Amino acid sequence: MIDEVDKKILNILSQDAKASLKWIGNQCNLSAAAVHLRLKKLEKQKIITGSKSVIDTYKLGYQTQSFIGIYFDRANMYKKVSKALYQIPEVVECNYTTGNFSLLVKVMCRDNQHLTQVLSEKIQVIDGIARTETFIALEQTFNRSIQY
Amino acid sequence: MIDEVDKKILNILSQDAKASLKWIGNQCNLSAAAVHLRLKKLEKQKIITGSKSVIDTYKLGYQTQSFIGIYFDRANMYKKVSKALYQIPEVVECNYTTGNFSLLVKVMCRDNQHLTQVLSEKIQVIDGIARTETFIALEQTFNRSIQY
Amino acid sequence: MIDEVDKKILNILSQDAKASLKWIGNQCNLSAAAVHLRLKKLEKQKIITGSKSVIDTYKLGYQTQSFIGIYFDRANMYKKVSKALYQIPEVVECNYTTGNFSLLVKVMCRDNQHLTQVLSEKIQVIDGIARTETFIALEQTFNRSIQY
Amino acid sequence: MIDEVDKKILNILSQDAKASLKWIGNQCNLSAAAVHLRLKKLEKQKIITGSKSVIDTYKLGYQTQSFIGIYFDRANMYKKVSKALYQIPEVVECNYTTGNFSLLVKVMCRDNQHLTQVLSEKIQVIDGIARTETFIALEQTFNRSIQY
Amino acid sequence: MIDEVDKKILNILSQDAKASLKWIGNQCNLSAAAVHLRLKKLEKQKIITGSKSVIDTYKLGYQTQSFIGIYFDRANMYKKVSKALYQIPEVVECNYTTGNFSLLVKVMCRDNQHLTQVLSEKIQVIDGIARTETFIALEQTFNRSIQY
Amino acid sequence: MIDEVDKKILNILSQDAKASLKWIGNQCNLSAAAVHLRLKKLEKQKIITGSKSVIDTYKLGYQTQSFIGIYFDRANMYKKVSKALYQIPEVVECNYTTGNFSLLVKVMCRDNQHLTQVLSEKIQVIDGIARTETFIALEQTFNRSIQY
Amino acid sequence: MIDEVDKKILNILSQDAKASLKWIGNQCNLSAAAVHLRLKKLEKQKIITGSKSVIDTYKLGYQTQSFIGIYFDRANMYKKVSKALYQIPEVVECNYTTGNFSLLVKVMCRDNQHLTQVLSEKIQVIDGIARTETFIALEQTFNRSIQY
Amino acid sequence: MIDEVDKKILNILSQDAKASLKWIGNQCNLSAAAVHLRLKKLEKQKIITGSKSVIDTYKLGYQTQSFIGIYFDRANMYKKVSKALYQIPEVVECNYTTGNFSLLVKVMCRDNQHLTQVLSEKIQVIDGIARTETFIALEQTFNRSIQY
Repeated sequence: MIDEVDKKILNILSQDAKASLKWIGNQCNLSAAAVHLRLKKLEKQKIITGSKSVIDTYKLGYQTQSFIGIYFDRANMYKKVSKALYQIPEVVECNYTTGNFSLLVKVMCRDNQHLTQVLSEKIQVIDGIARTETFIALEQTFNRSIQY
Repeated sequence: MIDEVDKKILNILSQDAKASLKWIGNQCNLSAAAVHLRLKKLEKQKIITGSKSVIDTYKLGYQTQSFIGIYFDRANMYKKVSKALYQIPEVVECNYTTGNFSLLVKVMCRDNQHLTQVLSEKIQVIDGIARTETFIALEQTFNRSIQY
Repeated sequence: MIDEVDKKILNILSQDAKASLKWIGNQCNLSAAAVHLRLKKLEKQKIITGSKSVIDTYKLGYQTQSFIGIYFDRANMYKKVSKALYQIPEVVECNYTTGNFSLLVKVMCRDNQHLTQVLSEKIQVIDGIARTETFIALEQTFNRSIQY
Repeated sequence: MIDEVDKKILNILSQDAKASLKWIGNQCNLSAAAVHLRLKKLEKQKIITGSKSVIDTYKLGYQTQSFIGIYFDRANMYKKVSKALYQIPEVVECNYTTGNFSLLVKVMCRDNQHLTQVLSEKIQVIDGIARTETFIALEQTFNRSIQY
Repeated sequence: MIDEVDKKILNILSQDAKASLKWIGNQCNLSAAAVHLRLKKLEKQKIITGSKSVIDTYKLGYQTQSFIGIYFDRANMYKKVSKALYQIPEVVECNYTTGNFSLLVKVMCRDNQHLTQVLSEKIQVIDGIARTETFIALEQTFNRSIQY
Repeated sequence: MIDEVDKKILNILSQDAKASLKWIGNQCNLSAAAVHLRLKKLEKQKIITGSKSVIDTYKLGYQTQSFIGIYFDRANMYKKVSKALYQIPEVVECNYTTGNFSLLVKVMCRDNQHLTQVLSEKIQVIDGIARTETFIALEQTFNRSIQY
Repeated sequence: MIDEVDKKILNILSQDAKASLKWIGNQCNLSAAAVHLRLKKLEKQKIITGSKSVIDTYKLGYQTQSFIGIYFDRANMYKKVSKALYQIPEVVECNYTTGNFSLLVKVMCRDNQHLTQVLSEKIQVIDGIARTETFIALEQTFNRSIQY
Repeated sequence: MIDEVDKKILNILSQDAKASLKWIGNQCNLSAAAVHLRLKKLEKQKIITGSKSVIDTYKLGYQTQSFIGIYFDRANMYKKVSKALYQIPEVVECNYTTGNFSLLVKVMCRDNQHLTQVLSEKIQVIDGIARTETFIALEQTFNRSIQY
């Protein structure tokens, strides 16, 4: 579907969405025009779907990142609970997982007090949730894009 | 540190790194020049640190995303093990957590066979790791930036 | 009930249901007729109950084999839940076990997406199931008949 | 790769390896010759790899079937431990799994005393195994081939 | 309350309820009459409350001894559930414990099939029991009276 | 092996080792001589192996009964650890079990302080024990012989 | 907010609420009057909020201290259950925690029998509590104020 | 040992170490002199062993209180590990407990970053500790003295 040169371009863009065609071309031994064509193709294939600024959430005061394992009180609550979680802005990632708990979500809060409030007033009141188990990320060692 | 208008700008950029000054200005009732000044300040404060293209990893064949809880065989292995994990390209996120296991990492693989290989040949051979527990994300319900 | 020669015959047949009487006889120092008599007896005793072709399910696209531990929401759901599980063709084995969970079932799916669907749309909707815990068999090291 | 008729044939053979060409043909609206051709193709593609007699192990006195979760004392013991387990005839299935334990094996024993012996004298003496957790299958509710 | 000689007597009787006064006296440097007086006192103090024959339950066919941890579905079920368990003759010991489960009971059965039946038809149907976890005693290493 | 009358006799003796032949006979519609013959046979078959006085251990000050789950640091420590446990008089019962821990032992102590000492100075110093988990029996609801 | 001298004063007072101004002054190279001023300030800032006598609860017969993990039967029971626990005098500390259980409380009882009663008659009857897990503090190694 | 009036006095002092003799007397219908005599006796009996100021640790910036369960790598490490923990000022309470982990300690830190440092640089480097499990007290609902 994509070749090694495409992968190289994607690796560059996954670290800088605004890399210039020229600079990408230099890295890949391509003309800027050729890079442009490849980018168009990757966008048309919906492999590149957009861009986002990288923002230092810690500096903005979001210093308590946590993972919360969610247990349901009945087994078939996946869709209903997911929708309710989506309404909570602090819940930034939601996965339906194998293993002990049904959902593993990532939550960004300012501090432990904020987390307490999100947990007890927003998450635990959702119908269908029986129990939650919180893992606070004491330190995020690294977080990066996959290299192809 | 930052005001409500800055937050609005950050929310826009977290969904589109390439939003035009004019369009951002329209959303915030600011002139493009005023937006430009604010962006400069946010970059200078190292609140905006860069940008990344959003790439559909699933479409590129990375269809098995998993979370792996890592237990150490001795308690003080945090730094040594983290460094070794950083050398593995499939490990895209690493957190030092409270709770059952010491590290919770996110791993992106093409399929279960690829995961088997990463697990048995790359992760479990790291000195200091006693045991791993894998949670495969059967479905990623959502993954988004926090809204300020 | 059966002697050492019977065991030898059963070991041969557990690896090849179509082994010829003559070949079995050669392995056991028996005439083909004697083998025939013993086979008749083993069938009459309902020790040999049939035969099955060995089919490479992995090659047919069933690449995600998993074990699922099932917890009930009330303790006495064994019979009711078992019956419901039997209606799901992907569930190929069901055991009532000691230990943490009440049932341990084996499920054959094409991939993780298929498993997600079986789990959330077929298994977790069964009345009486409170929670499931999935163990994906990343690799099946071996699977064989017992040798007597 | 295979069509609906092939699937029907495989379903029949997975329940009776010795089904006659004619009988299979009747079920599928095919001539015996056409069935023969399809069987040859399925064997050539290594989709059908052999056959096995179905033997009532319970009647032969193997009344304690169990699943044993195996924890390693070091993380990278998968290959070494698997090989050692393969030498134990009572271990009939071995899977490398996600979740709590590293290996999930199925063991067939005559009774609890036999299992005690296999566990303490054969399995737990293998270098690299730290701990085992046994789930006895009090009752095997069903065990069947997948239907395609 | 009791002295060292009393303890010696109790140790003897805990191994043989029918030990003769004379033999006990020999062990303790007492006359048979003095032993008699002490026994009377120990019975009056309700320290010795009776006697029981020691019966080889294994030889009588009770070959599956198990411990079952019982979890309640509501927290305050201790008295109600205990009473119901007392009606089941196979349940020979019941303890209200700290830790994971609420009750830890000992169950004597003839074999795993008998245990399956006791578990699914007698124990798990008791109102208030949410879940059970069975530990089969593969081997009882020893079982003795405490020595004072 | 034994008939219903034998069972009745055993039930009586399991509650009173000193029941008179006459009284047993009355309960079973037998002469004392016939009871005598049956008792001789049950002793000769080693079904009745002795007798023990029933002693109120709680009254003697043994008020903290606990169950201790023992985990090994290597898997094959069963025999060695069992022998060491047998040397500790407070350990009155030892079982090799399926499930989480390898051994489940019963320990009789005077109080929590005594248990602390037995645990830290006698049990946890045994070579081969990695970890223990203690369940204190807050109340022993009942403890009785099985009725045949 | 407070300086190193304040910290030194607080450390002294956390071990002796009645330390004299003069003695504190000697330790800190301050006049008694200066100490007095600082104390007034610390009280005004509500950093020092009172004093308590240190009482040997063990000597008063409270010999079973335990920690009890509380699981809710529905997720949003934090406030309601906390209030009910506050009514039980033996519950001296209550924390809303991350991890397995929702609340971790400390309970002071005279002995295991008293704990049994508090657990089954006071705590487990609270509406909203599904399950409790008790950790008895066999020995309190130390308990002290933090040093600043 | 102590009577109801003593208990009343202790309850008062456990909330205010500096309560005046007169005020205590009023509460208990005693003269100040009688209160004085009782206090002397309680001190002589070492029931009252001192006093401590109550300090608002949260206001001083210690906003992350946590409980840490400690698992040993060998079973008999209680005394050695306890001593090492005593050297860490942030560890304010240490209990040797029944249940899953061997020690349950309380740790007072300024924030999650401080906790990370205490955990990885002070606690997990202690020889004999295999693993820790952290429960952050998101909110301390209450913390009080027992009332007699």
